Amino acid sequence: MLDKIEPKLREACGVCGGRTEGLPLAHITCFALYALQHRGQDGAGIAVGPGNGEKMWLKKGMGLVSEVFPHAGELKDLKANISVGHVRYSLRSRGRRLEDTEPLLLRYRYGELAIAHNGILLNGASLRRELEEQGAIFQSGTDSELLGHLVAREANPCLEEALAAVVPRLKGAFAFVLSDGRKVIALRDGHGFRPLSLGHFDDRGFFFASETCAFDTIGARFLRDLAPGEMVVLDEKGVHSCQIIPPVSRQALCVFELVYFARPDSNLAGKNVHLVRRALGRQLALEQPADADIVSGVPDSSIAAASGYAEQAGLPYEMALVKNRYIGRTFIQPTQEMREEGADLKLNAVRKIVEGKRVVLVDDSIVRGTTSIKLVQMMRRVGAREIHLRISSPPVIASCRYGIDTPDTEELMAYKNSPEEIARLIGADSIGFLSHEGAAKAIGLPAGELCWACFSGKYPVD
Amino acid sequence: MLDKIEPKLREACGVCGGRTEGLPLAHITCFALYALQHRGQDGAGIAVGPGNGEKMWLKKGMGLVSEVFPHAGELKDLKANISVGHVRYSLRSRGRRLEDTEPLLLRYRYGELAIAHNGILLNGASLRRELEEQGAIFQSGTDSELLGHLVAREANPCLEEALAAVVPRLKGAFAFVLSDGRKVIALRDGHGFRPLSLGHFDDRGFFFASETCAFDTIGARFLRDLAPGEMVVLDEKGVHSCQIIPPVSRQALCVFELVYFARPDSNLAGKNVHLVRRALGRQLALEQPADADIVSGVPDSSIAAASGYAEQAGLPYEMALVKNRYIGRTFIQPTQEMREEGADLKLNAVRKIVEGKRVVLVDDSIVRGTTSIKLVQMMRRVGAREIHLRISSPPVIASCRYGIDTPDTEELMAYKNSPEEIARLIGADSIGFLSHEGAAKAIGLPAGELCWACFSGKYPVD
Amino acid sequence: MLDKIEPKLREACGVCGGRTEGLPLAHITCFALYALQHRGQDGAGIAVGPGNGEKMWLKKGMGLVSEVFPHAGELKDLKANISVGHVRYSLRSRGRRLEDTEPLLLRYRYGELAIAHNGILLNGASLRRELEEQGAIFQSGTDSELLGHLVAREANPCLEEALAAVVPRLKGAFAFVLSDGRKVIALRDGHGFRPLSLGHFDDRGFFFASETCAFDTIGARFLRDLAPGEMVVLDEKGVHSCQIIPPVSRQALCVFELVYFARPDSNLAGKNVHLVRRALGRQLALEQPADADIVSGVPDSSIAAASGYAEQAGLPYEMALVKNRYIGRTFIQPTQEMREEGADLKLNAVRKIVEGKRVVLVDDSIVRGTTSIKLVQMMRRVGAREIHLRISSPPVIASCRYGIDTPDTEELMAYKNSPEEIARLIGADSIGFLSHEGAAKAIGLPAGELCWACFSGKYPVD
Amino acid sequence: MLDKIEPKLREACGVCGGRTEGLPLAHITCFALYALQHRGQDGAGIAVGPGNGEKMWLKKGMGLVSEVFPHAGELKDLKANISVGHVRYSLRSRGRRLEDTEPLLLRYRYGELAIAHNGILLNGASLRRELEEQGAIFQSGTDSELLGHLVAREANPCLEEALAAVVPRLKGAFAFVLSDGRKVIALRDGHGFRPLSLGHFDDRGFFFASETCAFDTIGARFLRDLAPGEMVVLDEKGVHSCQIIPPVSRQALCVFELVYFARPDSNLAGKNVHLVRRALGRQLALEQPADADIVSGVPDSSIAAASGYAEQAGLPYEMALVKNRYIGRTFIQPTQEMREEGADLKLNAVRKIVEGKRVVLVDDSIVRGTTSIKLVQMMRRVGAREIHLRISSPPVIASCRYGIDTPDTEELMAYKNSPEEIARLIGADSIGFLSHEGAAKAIGLPAGELCWACFSGKYPVD
Repeated sequence: MLDKIEPKLREACGVCGGRTEGLPLAHITCFALYALQHRGQDGAGIAVGPGNGEKMWLKKGMGLVSEVFPHAGELKDLKANISVGHVRYSLRSRGRRLEDTEPLLLRYRYGELAIAHNGILLNGASLRRELEEQGAIFQSGTDSELLGHLVAREANPCLEEALAAVVPRLKGAFAFVLSDGRKVIALRDGHGFRPLSLGHFDDRGFFFASETCAFDTIGARFLRDLAPGEMVVLDEKGVHSCQIIPPVSRQALCVFELVYFARPDSNLAGKNVHLVRRALGRQLALEQPADADIVSGVPDSSIAAASGYAEQAGLPYEMALVKNRYIGRTFIQPTQEMREEGADLKLNAVRKIVEGKRVVLVDDSIVRGTTSIKLVQMMRRVGAREIHLRISSPPVIASCRYGIDTPDTEELMAYKNSPEEIARLIGADSIGFLSHEGAAKAIGLPAGELCWACFSGKYPVD
Repeated sequence: MLDKIEPKLREACGVCGGRTEGLPLAHITCFALYALQHRGQDGAGIAVGPGNGEKMWLKKGMGLVSEVFPHAGELKDLKANISVGHVRYSLRSRGRRLEDTEPLLLRYRYGELAIAHNGILLNGASLRRELEEQGAIFQSGTDSELLGHLVAREANPCLEEALAAVVPRLKGAFAFVLSDGRKVIALRDGHGFRPLSLGHFDDRGFFFASETCAFDTIGARFLRDLAPGEMVVLDEKGVHSCQIIPPVSRQALCVFELVYFARPDSNLAGKNVHLVRRALGRQLALEQPADADIVSGVPDSSIAAASGYAEQAGLPYEMALVKNRYIGRTFIQPTQEMREEGADLKLNAVRKIVEGKRVVLVDDSIVRGTTSIKLVQMMRRVGAREIHLRISSPPVIASCRYGIDTPDTEELMAYKNSPEEIARLIGADSIGFLSHEGAAKAIGLPAGELCWACFSGKYPVD
Repeated sequence: MLDKIEPKLREACGVCGGRTEGLPLAHITCFALYALQHRGQDGAGIAVGPGNGEKMWLKKGMGLVSEVFPHAGELKDLKANISVGHVRYSLRSRGRRLEDTEPLLLRYRYGELAIAHNGILLNGASLRRELEEQGAIFQSGTDSELLGHLVAREANPCLEEALAAVVPRLKGAFAFVLSDGRKVIALRDGHGFRPLSLGHFDDRGFFFASETCAFDTIGARFLRDLAPGEMVVLDEKGVHSCQIIPPVSRQALCVFELVYFARPDSNLAGKNVHLVRRALGRQLALEQPADADIVSGVPDSSIAAASGYAEQAGLPYEMALVKNRYIGRTFIQPTQEMREEGADLKLNAVRKIVEGKRVVLVDDSIVRGTTSIKLVQMMRRVGAREIHLRISSPPVIASCRYGIDTPDTEELMAYKNSPEEIARLIGADSIGFLSHEGAAKAIGLPAGELCWACFSGKYPVD
Repeated sequence: MLDKIEPKLREACGVCGGRTEGLPLAHITCFALYALQHRGQDGAGIAVGPGNGEKMWLKKGMGLVSEVFPHAGELKDLKANISVGHVRYSLRSRGRRLEDTEPLLLRYRYGELAIAHNGILLNGASLRRELEEQGAIFQSGTDSELLGHLVAREANPCLEEALAAVVPRLKGAFAFVLSDGRKVIALRDGHGFRPLSLGHFDDRGFFFASETCAFDTIGARFLRDLAPGEMVVLDEKGVHSCQIIPPVSRQALCVFELVYFARPDSNLAGKNVHLVRRALGRQLALEQPADADIVSGVPDSSIAAASGYAEQAGLPYEMALVKNRYIGRTFIQPTQEMREEGADLKLNAVRKIVEGKRVVLVDDSIVRGTTSIKLVQMMRRVGAREIHLRISSPPVIASCRYGIDTPDTEELMAYKNSPEEIARLIGADSIGFLSHEGAAKAIGLPAGELCWACFSGKYPVD
């Protein structure tokens, strides 16, 4: 997917945090956020404390981790034994707002609470109304603030107990990391929609992160994923855990994390993301072969699937599309003249590679389809003889309710159109999607342990 | 090569500029600089004018194009029919200085001159001394200022004639784009060390750029490369050309442009850079086979060679190293603890892919060798069973004198060490370099038409 | 008082806001904040809305108004019929924190609330504890958040009624401007410690501001001061008012507003501040004459008192101390060498004026005394023969509890020392303070209508 | 004069620099620039070196000293025994350009030259043409670059000798401070239009500055003014001097420096500026009495003259106009509605002081007259009964040719209009200018030792 040009689906945040001794934990947490940056680029924040209940220090702001923490080296000077970190994508419906950056740091009767969240509560609006009717005030649009209210009202000085009491009331997809200045606690919804893992620094402490790539970056070791419905507590005694939400029949990890969101060097549910994508590409070649000369992927996310496809199909893998690595978030629009010529600052189709060729173009998904149209035009303009679009996931036919920023269902190209119609609309010579079964097989997890809602329209939560 | 972590060889600038009618040329030039950004990230600048000799407008500064032109859309409002653009890498010996950013805009007896340069003059210091002895003052360390002095002293109101008179005095590698506010002129040294091409906007004008990828980005079409020693002039009559430097026996395009510097979607001397790199990888597999399980490349520059190697060798191509795409120039150093664990913000070795495997790791070059040592350590740490380093170019044994920022010859690992010693020093199980002949064959140009000085120690200029 | 070098007493905020039709109210509110900038330089913010209950727009940040609103012209594009504005000084005990900038914009069961506050609640901590015990969470240290909680819990959709119910519970000094997106409401504590006035734009609406100088700046006309304990409501029907706090026997306007804080072009309780200061200086000359050659004031706040003193005493008024107008908040410390020479970036004593002279130096107050010591040294160094310090207010012997950031009582120089001792400690040849009676007489208000607590130690509130 | 709102006349720069031992000279030079900030706010720069001819360090940029040197404390770390500093006002005709900021740092045959300039060369254009015809190139519009060229062409390794040879060719007003990395040299044109003084740090070195207030700020002591046509050299042997320009009959210090530009705590030609302005005011009261109730000055520059006038006239001095001290260079324009009401962010007329009064309003000059019109309107709007404008200098009838940015002669209100007509045009009840004789008398220098060209139209230089 042409991620930066027209981000169609977007992850809604990354969380992390830990409890350590003798380590520069604020600095480490900043590194972890760098590793999770792909999960949220609208805001970043870190709360840390000495771990004895004393006041926490908070810094957060809009933008990339490097923009919010331009002098990250100074973080080493902070006395930090506990931490909570967050990177944020704003829901487009809500807009980018400073007050929505996390972690939230709030005071309640028993001290302070730092809260970071990845996900979305389905019953957020009704809980919010209920709390408002009890006199609560809200200063952000975050679910973290909502959880803060619930905990504060629980009147239990033990944070675990308070969480155990209120978290079962939450419906939806959520992965929280929070701290009261002493303990650091992570918890995950009963379906395990959003990933959350635990790592360790040998005898120097533990660390949570949305993705395992953060552990590699900070020199921690992966221990295990949190189970759906599990709460894990880091305190002065070490790590302990309890099941605070009764287990649903099966977990339902978001399949799109594997297909597109997660970093290729992360492991989700024990599966390496890059290898999964290669396998998806190979399976796609089996299911949707094409009589072609070369295979190419849309950078960066579809490269792995494309090279898997090429290998399986016995076709050369070529770089028909080159990405400009230096385009940041300052984006300038081409002029009308350039646009007519198909000029694009982000991607360039390479005539020498494509001209006169029958090209298999592998992408990871089609959402609105506008990007695909543009890609096909680019390939035609540089002389592709045939363009066979192959998608390494099934058609997206339903909007996500669990924290991914998807267009409304009616705007999804595959909602109303058959593959043939899509090929025609997009201008491709043929199109081929991966089957549900093929995707499950390539992923290597039972189909029942993944959330397929965007592909099936069947939502795991009532 | 692990380009951003420890840039060993660096291109020293990109130039562009054109003469058009009815186009927003300042905006177009900014787009072209975006496309050339990989050639220089220390500074950027654009000079434009209405093309009738009236005063030129100049903006330049330190940093990326997006930092110097944060409001690029406003460039559309400038009346611009002629332009000169530049992106700069500073020589490390000189440091990053505002006064060295280009284009230089200077006034002389016949009006203004805007000058942008890519390359390095071998006789720069002596020309400078000579000019100083005649009373000249210098405000920068650029060769552009030197050329400005020579032109101004030539006392010829015709810029072409002045250039034709003074350029033959320049020794070294150079590609200039310059303008007197009416004409836009590009010229190239007699060996053609640095690339420079001409494109056109149909009947709306012409444009020069260091690499052809700029043409694709701005919606121009490639016309031809400038010949070594050629000067091309754009004026109100169109385009005309003359050979201002007597042709040397053969051209000597920098082979490193093909191996590493240029963007994969550029064509140099008619060869597509990506395809050349793929061919280098395939040739490398023939010359330096390895008994291994997987092939992997160092992102981003060695991916193409690695996939070519894999194809030729019949081995699976895997992404053993994953790059964090969100690391900008704000770089934070890991703590001692993280460093011991091999933590790295830029690159991550993927255990699931590498563990227990015999890995062919393809890189494009070894300069000091420090990066290679680090890469091998990363692979060992995640469980690689064997590591076979394969380099898609010959050993670098001599420092470049033609505009590439190379360490001194004694610091080059291959200068004193045999391949076997290098393998030992780096900790690899084996190492293999591409032969000169193999490289030339893969590139598809006669070896005599390339500059091999860094691989051979034989410098084309006296 | 040497305000910028060592701010001893600091006003803790300015508020404003209005309800208008057909005016660019966001832009106007920004102008009003510029006029109130002297009341708070740590943060600024504006909330505006269309006035029909639709969502309000908020922008706030750390720093000066010009830093928070660098593109103030763009405010004209906002649809704004209601507004709330704030400039903030942070209490030194609390530190400068982004989350404490105001207005606060919060959501509660009946919609939104924007709240801005000037003052301090004496029972803030106990109210906060009480609310926390009921499960409330706090995200800032502001009293505005506290009021928001109280209003939200009142469960009355009519904001006036809710305020009338909860405001009587507040103890201390306060001046609030707030809005629910429809009405704009201002209210003042029962003693009227902090100033708050109402102005109008003829038939186009009304505007509140902490000081009347804001009306001049925005082209509004002063209508009247709010009475102590009064709440004034602007809604679609116009302006109406009620007494929500039972009137105390007498109002108690902070006398320091007149002596030091307020802008000289403001009128407080009907008195022009500049004229009051002139009168204080004249009264000081009557009470504390000095046998001297010239009179000089400490810029900027004591110039008026000094010129009044000079006039009354029949002595020439001279500018013995000159202030550097270009010193912003980026403050560089002099080197040791400079310090020994008395070098100072902010103030310069003028030898040609002072040398050999007996100087009356008029300042508005002595708090810790450290500034006075420095001033006397500066005068000595440039050759003053005698230095007679005259203070245009009584000795400060008690710390303020009503919103002024004062040192602890024990740190006040006049708390433990007689005037004679102070003169000795400071190094002056003589010192003279204004009497309470003289100050009251010069101000022209009954002493009983002012708060003299910092001079008397008698606090108006239980 | 209402300086910030509509700067009519502007000083064109301040210079400083010194040679010291054992002092943090870069930091000291930065302090000196702070003291000279009123002489130039468009750019600032400092060049320093170890004083042994080694490379100099340069930093300069657009904006205030605090903007160019935000981390001035770091300057202490530089090894700096010689320095050259500059603050710049751009001529409006030329515009604000980065390349015109000074000091210029250039290389020539004998090493480096750092040059800073205050003034303007009358024969700059012809010298420039002459140099261009010899093949020189120019990269800025500064006279410093011109001097650099002349020195470089002089082919004399001794900088003093080179200067002595070329400076006599310069016509106009100039005060240069320059250094070759060893010596620091200051020189002044033959008329001494622009001020330049020498100070010392006891046995630790010497320092030049445009105004003596800089010495007070950095802890140096005033030694003497440079004589017209004098060059003073600081080298390892100490300080020595020579007369490089044959003395003109008499010096011609710019009278406007005394009337308006210089800081009140500076001494020019031995006269304290504040005392001069007071005396101008007193003389004005004698020459141009008025039947009035109060006297008021336009802040900040006319306060001294106004208080002198009030004293002489026996009238109370009042602050009828109050200036907002927090308006920086980010200036927002009032809306149409506010403008109709006379709203102004910079100045506020105080009704309580002015209403019903006959006001003498003292200003230091009338240039275009537009500001005066606005001031009179402001006073009328707040109820002034009569407005008697008194100007503490003669009518400005001729544009300055010596470095002050004045409008063209035809735009000067007094060029075509008699005082009576001016009063009518401005809307004042009466107007009164100071006579030439009165001004000279108040200043206390022979009229022949000042430049009166802007008042007389008689220019001292051919």
